Amino acid sequence: MKRSCLLLVMLVTMPLIPNPARAKVVTQSVEYRQEGTVCQGWLSYDDAVKGRRPAVLLIHDWMGVSDHQKSQVEALAALGYVALAADMYGKGVRPANAQEASAEAGKYYKDPALLRARARAGFDELASLPQTDPERMAVTGYCFGGRCALELARSGAPLRAVVTFHGSLAASAPADKEHFHAKVLALHGADDPFVKQEEVKGFMDEMRAAGVDWQLVQYSGAVHAFTDPRAGNDNSKGTAYNAAADRRSWRAMRDFLEETLAK
Amino acid sequence: MKRSCLLLVMLVTMPLIPNPARAKVVTQSVEYRQEGTVCQGWLSYDDAVKGRRPAVLLIHDWMGVSDHQKSQVEALAALGYVALAADMYGKGVRPANAQEASAEAGKYYKDPALLRARARAGFDELASLPQTDPERMAVTGYCFGGRCALELARSGAPLRAVVTFHGSLAASAPADKEHFHAKVLALHGADDPFVKQEEVKGFMDEMRAAGVDWQLVQYSGAVHAFTDPRAGNDNSKGTAYNAAADRRSWRAMRDFLEETLAK
Repeated sequence: MKRSCLLLVMLVTMPLIPNPARAKVVTQSVEYRQEGTVCQGWLSYDDAVKGRRPAVLLIHDWMGVSDHQKSQVEALAALGYVALAADMYGKGVRPANAQEASAEAGKYYKDPALLRARARAGFDELASLPQTDPERMAVTGYCFGGRCALELARSGAPLRAVVTFHGSLAASAPADKEHFHAKVLALHGADDPFVKQEEVKGFMDEMRAAGVDWQLVQYSGAVHAFTDPRAGNDNSKGTAYNAAADRRSWRAMRDFLEETLAK
Repeated sequence: MKRSCLLLVMLVTMPLIPNPARAKVVTQSVEYRQEGTVCQGWLSYDDAVKGRRPAVLLIHDWMGVSDHQKSQVEALAALGYVALAADMYGKGVRPANAQEASAEAGKYYKDPALLRARARAGFDELASLPQTDPERMAVTGYCFGGRCALELARSGAPLRAVVTFHGSLAASAPADKEHFHAKVLALHGADDPFVKQEEVKGFMDEMRAAGVDWQLVQYSGAVHAFTDPRAGNDNSKGTAYNAAADRRSWRAMRDFLEETLAK
């Protein structure tokens, strides 16, 4: 009798109740290559889940890979995705301050072909993993990483979704219908002094012209880097954390990935 | 044995699984007054829930109250809110076509004081109900109703939240810090030819100047009336249903109401 009861409970509850106790998120440092460059990122996934699942490539802001991206991919893994924090700069290239970051990011802004190839290497690494369902892949990017995420989609990568957080929205070459496969969600601080409203308008025009399925969310009182607690809280500096915009944008991303990465 | 199994299943599942079988959404026609004018709207709530709960006032598009608003308040009631579809025009005033609707809505656009008073009467009716927690109230509005929803907040109504769907975003008099208490979520079709991007920009500037907590979402490929299946599917007419934007905007509203109407 007890066994039959237990079975009944399991049958009734299994499809409806997630069991966080069984989740086992593991995170590891991974290396991969783009031609001669070794890249070092973070990979995270739930080891209690078997089989292929939707995958998210996460691209860092101009400061490069750090522990911040580790916690971000872990949060994505907790949602059920296999997530790779890509390394755009190459192993060991970790800017120590804004000046170094600007110089490093500048190399890629100036060389869009390199930027696209480097982003693609991260995409290919993630697509090749045994946990990944390569038919269900998305990319998210922050600031500089937002530009990389969009450039990856513009280059024709078989992505279902792109999410940018306070991303640079300008294009090295405009999206075109033939190559751009992803749906796009751009999450933007309405007072961002680095990605101004003119750039936002240019992005909307670009996406419209290419027939992309896109959405844009503007958050009041939010400036650049609004998801990053390391940015402090002084809006007048142009970069600052904004707890409401951080929470809301994460929720918007969750809803969007749920929609676009469903089977 | 069967009874003990059932009990066990219930004990295990009750706190985690909502029980739609217990929900009892009731909808009724209600009348209320604004000075000499009798208004007739729809009220909907879950009768299986006891006590006061958060409340949503819903304001119709320029066609006035119809069965469309009935299904909308029922959907809100299913989410746990007590919802009232306000009647801006007065009992029996139901435009039969766009020409009549334009004339009727025009009366209120031209008389902002009347518009605000009429919207306030719906708000007061909802606030007075035994099901309503008057500390947790929101307003949602569609097209013309979006304008009414914002005007209600601009007039100083004690609202926690305003949601507009393809709403008219211009103001009869700009919001000011002292009177505007609500957080705002504006859900907009990026190709809306009636609420153009210049009006969207004016709205952002107005909200910014008044220090409002606001968000704006733009949906690609969506024109005016994108939530309304009655609008057909020909974007070139300027009004058309858009299933993706309808689904996404409803989800955004759900997230926002969950956040703003929480205890």
